[in-house]
Amino acid sequence: MDTLIAVDIGGTNIRCALFPLKGNSHITIKKIRTLSSRGKSEKPIDRLISCIEEIWPKQGRVLGICAAAPGSIAVNDGVVLLAPNIPGWKNIPLGKTLENHFAVKTLINNDARLATYGEWKKGSGIGHSNLLYYTLSTGIGGGIIVNGRLLQGEIGIATEVGHITIHADGPLCSCGQPGHMEAFSSGTAIEKYVHDKISEGKSNAEVFNNEVPSSAEIAKAALAGNPLSKEAFDRAGYFLGIGVANYLHIFNPSCIIFGGGVSRSGNLIFDPFYASLKKHVLSKRYLENLTITTAKLGDNAGLIGCVEYLRDTLL
Amino acid sequence: MDTLIAVDIGGTNIRCALFPLKGNSHITIKKIRTLSSRGKSEKPIDRLISCIEEIWPKQGRVLGICAAAPGSIAVNDGVVLLAPNIPGWKNIPLGKTLENHFAVKTLINNDARLATYGEWKKGSGIGHSNLLYYTLSTGIGGGIIVNGRLLQGEIGIATEVGHITIHADGPLCSCGQPGHMEAFSSGTAIEKYVHDKISEGKSNAEVFNNEVPSSAEIAKAALAGNPLSKEAFDRAGYFLGIGVANYLHIFNPSCIIFGGGVSRSGNLIFDPFYASLKKHVLSKRYLENLTITTAKLGDNAGLIGCVEYLRDTLL
Repeated sequence: MDTLIAVDIGGTNIRCALFPLKGNSHITIKKIRTLSSRGKSEKPIDRLISCIEEIWPKQGRVLGICAAAPGSIAVNDGVVLLAPNIPGWKNIPLGKTLENHFAVKTLINNDARLATYGEWKKGSGIGHSNLLYYTLSTGIGGGIIVNGRLLQGEIGIATEVGHITIHADGPLCSCGQPGHMEAFSSGTAIEKYVHDKISEGKSNAEVFNNEVPSSAEIAKAALAGNPLSKEAFDRAGYFLGIGVANYLHIFNPSCIIFGGGVSRSGNLIFDPFYASLKKHVLSKRYLENLTITTAKLGDNAGLIGCVEYLRDTLL
Repeated sequence: MDTLIAVDIGGTNIRCALFPLKGNSHITIKKIRTLSSRGKSEKPIDRLISCIEEIWPKQGRVLGICAAAPGSIAVNDGVVLLAPNIPGWKNIPLGKTLENHFAVKTLINNDARLATYGEWKKGSGIGHSNLLYYTLSTGIGGGIIVNGRLLQGEIGIATEVGHITIHADGPLCSCGQPGHMEAFSSGTAIEKYVHDKISEGKSNAEVFNNEVPSSAEIAKAALAGNPLSKEAFDRAGYFLGIGVANYLHIFNPSCIIFGGGVSRSGNLIFDPFYASLKKHVLSKRYLENLTITTAKLGDNAGLIGCVEYLRDTLL
């Protein structure tokens, strides 16, 4: 049987899955920790290779491998330029390494972009030719479909969707630049806002179990009526509306999909987001026939995206 | 002989040109004022039809008409949703009107987007598959090529490139929203900045011939050493750098083209723009192998864009 291998590399886990050439369900799936346990010096790339070897089929051919990696990828060269969550991953020729080892065509792409591909082909975005996907998580990643094709850019470092300045005098982003959308509307931004207010003595931390509450805890506190927590989500949603209005003016899409942990806080973020989006669009036309929805494929979006991307590229 | 007709509709003039099916030079060109002289009530659309009739060939077929219009266009329907510079142009079914009158396939698109098409096919953008075009004029318009295709969006109202919020607390844009790139870096924004400073008594107007100097006059004054004028261009260039960095992070293009009156002020705007762009990009990779240049086709970009767009669409 002909097969395809999908790999989703995260800061915590690597997941490898063997898929049939056609069909939606994987044949085998395996998960390992990205970093070896303390004391062992095995590199993430060696662990990744072992993981693929373990699911390699005993019979039949593997026609291609696609790996989703976090961070900035030079897609055409298969090089991970920088993956901040994986120690030492800077200018890693991941594509060539896997291709040399397995002697199989290998594609490398950004994880959020491949999740976009998965949601577009098999999830909430089916049938749309102009689509935006945002994953609201620790940071804000995503992907964009234009004219029925994935937007990747000249060397593959396009769609850094969270890294757009929406407030030139705003708070610093994780990347060091001021006022990016990610610095207002990511999980980290929500946590930082609450933490800063508590540190400034403007609110008290009694409602939280931890001194540095997570965005999920803040969401819980907001639902229980805590004003500071509500305020943090209102702010995140408001600025998300400003940022997404920018994207509507640039792309005029027919579908927007939100994934990631923060999107699971539901109305807490989406109510202020919608209000802000309506206020900031140039014209109501941008909202007519626009589907705004949440991701459908959950943690499997990346793996499914890998397989669909392989199929469309190879076949 | 088979021919094509290109039409460039502006707030001041309408220009119509007859082109051969193949070849770069027009056969006939005609220009009329968009509005009739005082006292006459002839509508712009009737004047446009007369202008096309005048260049209509005596012999041979016209295979298509393409009209470039200012403002927001529902491209698929050929409807001018809103053209603020042309009195009464709101929801004008321009495509159907011309198609019914001339019985010829007619395409309608935004003027800056067709200028982008012209520069891409015959001007400064030849050979690039991922390209950004900005016209820095009264406002900021433009167009975007992704994966070798024009970005238009679902109904054709994409690439409102000047209308992205880069400073949520910034000055109001012509559209009424705060802090758009256009509100910092257009000719109008430069003029407003100087005018406001003079009104506030923070500078004097002696250096200018007019009470409300144009951006061209301000450029002249800046070159002659006037500090306020220099400051106005520094500010415009700085914020243009922030806005364009956003676009680099989204599109990772290989070419950026600037057109429009303000781009003719040269280093006055481009020196602070480059400095700001370098400061605001996520990584130097976005600037490697990136061509930044000015438009080549001048006032003819729109007409040439119309013809190329017709050729690619019809043939």
